[in-house]
Amino acid sequence: MGIAELTRNAVDVLPEGGLEAKLRLGRPLRVKLGIDVTSPDIHLGRGIPLQRMRAFQDEGHKAVFIVGDYTTRIGDPSGRSSERPILSDEEIDANAQVYLEQAKTILRDDPELLEVRYNGEWLSKLGYADVVGLGRIVTVARMLERDDFDKRYRAGEPISISELLYPLMQAYDSVAIEADVELGGTDQLYNLLAGREVMQAFGLEPQVVLTTPLLLSWDGGKMSSSVGNNVPLTAAPEEMFGRTMRIPDSQLVEWWTLVAEQPVPEGEAMEAKLALARFVVARSHGEEAARAAEGYFERTVRDRKPPEEVPEHALPAGDPVHLPGVLAEAFGLSTSEARRLIGQGGVRLDGDAVSALDLPRERLAGAVLQAGKRRFVRLNEAT
Amino acid sequence: MGIAELTRNAVDVLPEGGLEAKLRLGRPLRVKLGIDVTSPDIHLGRGIPLQRMRAFQDEGHKAVFIVGDYTTRIGDPSGRSSERPILSDEEIDANAQVYLEQAKTILRDDPELLEVRYNGEWLSKLGYADVVGLGRIVTVARMLERDDFDKRYRAGEPISISELLYPLMQAYDSVAIEADVELGGTDQLYNLLAGREVMQAFGLEPQVVLTTPLLLSWDGGKMSSSVGNNVPLTAAPEEMFGRTMRIPDSQLVEWWTLVAEQPVPEGEAMEAKLALARFVVARSHGEEAARAAEGYFERTVRDRKPPEEVPEHALPAGDPVHLPGVLAEAFGLSTSEARRLIGQGGVRLDGDAVSALDLPRERLAGAVLQAGKRRFVRLNEAT
Repeated sequence: MGIAELTRNAVDVLPEGGLEAKLRLGRPLRVKLGIDVTSPDIHLGRGIPLQRMRAFQDEGHKAVFIVGDYTTRIGDPSGRSSERPILSDEEIDANAQVYLEQAKTILRDDPELLEVRYNGEWLSKLGYADVVGLGRIVTVARMLERDDFDKRYRAGEPISISELLYPLMQAYDSVAIEADVELGGTDQLYNLLAGREVMQAFGLEPQVVLTTPLLLSWDGGKMSSSVGNNVPLTAAPEEMFGRTMRIPDSQLVEWWTLVAEQPVPEGEAMEAKLALARFVVARSHGEEAARAAEGYFERTVRDRKPPEEVPEHALPAGDPVHLPGVLAEAFGLSTSEARRLIGQGGVRLDGDAVSALDLPRERLAGAVLQAGKRRFVRLNEAT
Repeated sequence: MGIAELTRNAVDVLPEGGLEAKLRLGRPLRVKLGIDVTSPDIHLGRGIPLQRMRAFQDEGHKAVFIVGDYTTRIGDPSGRSSERPILSDEEIDANAQVYLEQAKTILRDDPELLEVRYNGEWLSKLGYADVVGLGRIVTVARMLERDDFDKRYRAGEPISISELLYPLMQAYDSVAIEADVELGGTDQLYNLLAGREVMQAFGLEPQVVLTTPLLLSWDGGKMSSSVGNNVPLTAAPEEMFGRTMRIPDSQLVEWWTLVAEQPVPEGEAMEAKLALARFVVARSHGEEAARAAEGYFERTVRDRKPPEEVPEHALPAGDPVHLPGVLAEAFGLSTSEARRLIGQGGVRLDGDAVSALDLPRERLAGAVLQAGKRRFVRLNEAT
């Protein structure tokens, strides 16, 4: 254990020797991780820094989990992106609750080791003068050094002044909770370092900064719930299992290292992937759920068999029966989506792909209808 | 009168045709001029836009005079300059009172035509979220287009983020008071235009922008109370007169045009300068004070004669008498300043320059001692 475990997989630990010095203080450190509550899910990628937080907890340090409710309430800093909509207070509070539940699949839920704070607690009290005071600490040039800003500025893309105020909020969170260490993905490096500057300006010992690598999704992109290439930490076991199984073999080392924090098991790649998916589900839902999810995966995806229990769905009146209508009713698709799915060979009856839109009633009654890989109903006559 | 008078000496009136359109509204326009209260004086240069404000008043429009108490309370945006110190609330309130008095030497003090507002009224109510909302309206690139920012940014000089927040405050003032027109010096052009953008974002009809030229001081620099090259609008008549007389002949046209808004009178330059000084004093203190100030000027500066009433000062004991000590006591100089003044020929006894540091007592008793151009005491034996 010790420092090697605390910094496992870390990309930056700054300043050099800083963490060692903090540990020598001989008291529980306050280890900060902040998270915005724009989307309703924390995914496996966000779990990577949470795992470091857990490592600190395991050594007796205090995890200070910051819910960015205020930051979220303000909305997208540029006012352009639809990815960062302004949410209602209720949505934000609900998201915050879900986030916390998800974080607790990784963190130890012990009041001695976990402190949860909402940044509206201190940010809502700041006025114009305070914002100006914060703005005095950092120069525009320094802020534009940030990779993403720098690229956009050089490309002549607009950067709104408000965007410069976001990192300052995150930095002030560190002041408010007197962080000893702040964790984050490598894309957060600048913001975490700004936290050091701001803490210093407020007369506090600046935090140590620890960044973790980004976990890329199976499609090579950053995980995002709006893209749908994410693995939410509290999705249903079958969903988590199936999504994890989508990674190509080439990502096995990365995922085993970052998520399971173990070397890839020897043997077949498929076995290693199944073991990883079991690990992911077991951490969130327990061993039993993991085994059940694996069974479901084997039957539905691997062997193209329907799961053991398939819900019943009553056929509509008429003969022949219009299949897109049935798909729409059974799976909540639009009829045009249903038609497209049939055209792509994504609809099966008892395991065989269907291409016709209208089918004789007797062909359907009692058959298992499958849409895509994982949605099944058994069709029956209404009783 | 009419639009020619409203825009007299104006450098920019934007957008083109905008003022004409506002005037066609057929209601009194709200004409804004904002002023920070960092220094205790409004000088003659600041009076130039005030004169335009007065022209609007004369046509029945409403002057909305904004005292930037909140802006001032926040202090220097860069946190570097000693010229913009953070003042106490009492100092700010006192300055604001003095400002208003000074402004009223030019403005009409009629509640129908003058509205005085303190920007703390609305700015103190804004929170972090509101500042971010304002910051969303303007891009960093647009802000850095400003002449002064652009130069500093290119030169690699630090610009703090807080500096970008100042123009937004001024712009929001226009929203708060629903300005139709904003006045300012040419150095304010960018800030006034930012006001248009911000008003538009708040769903208001944007203000028309009217800039006036900067009035340069006799030394060719911008007037500044910290440099001492200014003419405060409510300085003592003698002081205002004397300072105005310092301008070189080459500035007569500029000062007559901008300050008196008249052509330079024909005849001798000295006469034109005296008439200008009389105008400046009369506007602040009345005709009688102007005549008295001119008389004082003639006696003390022009004819190097002491004023009619000279305070008495008792000689210290001893013979010979050490002159720097006397100067120090009589005029509050340091002895080294006094020695320097003597070396420069700036000290006279009954009108004759003195170069010796120690003088026989009989040479001093009863004589008029003069330091520089305008400080006099009559020396006498202590009684």
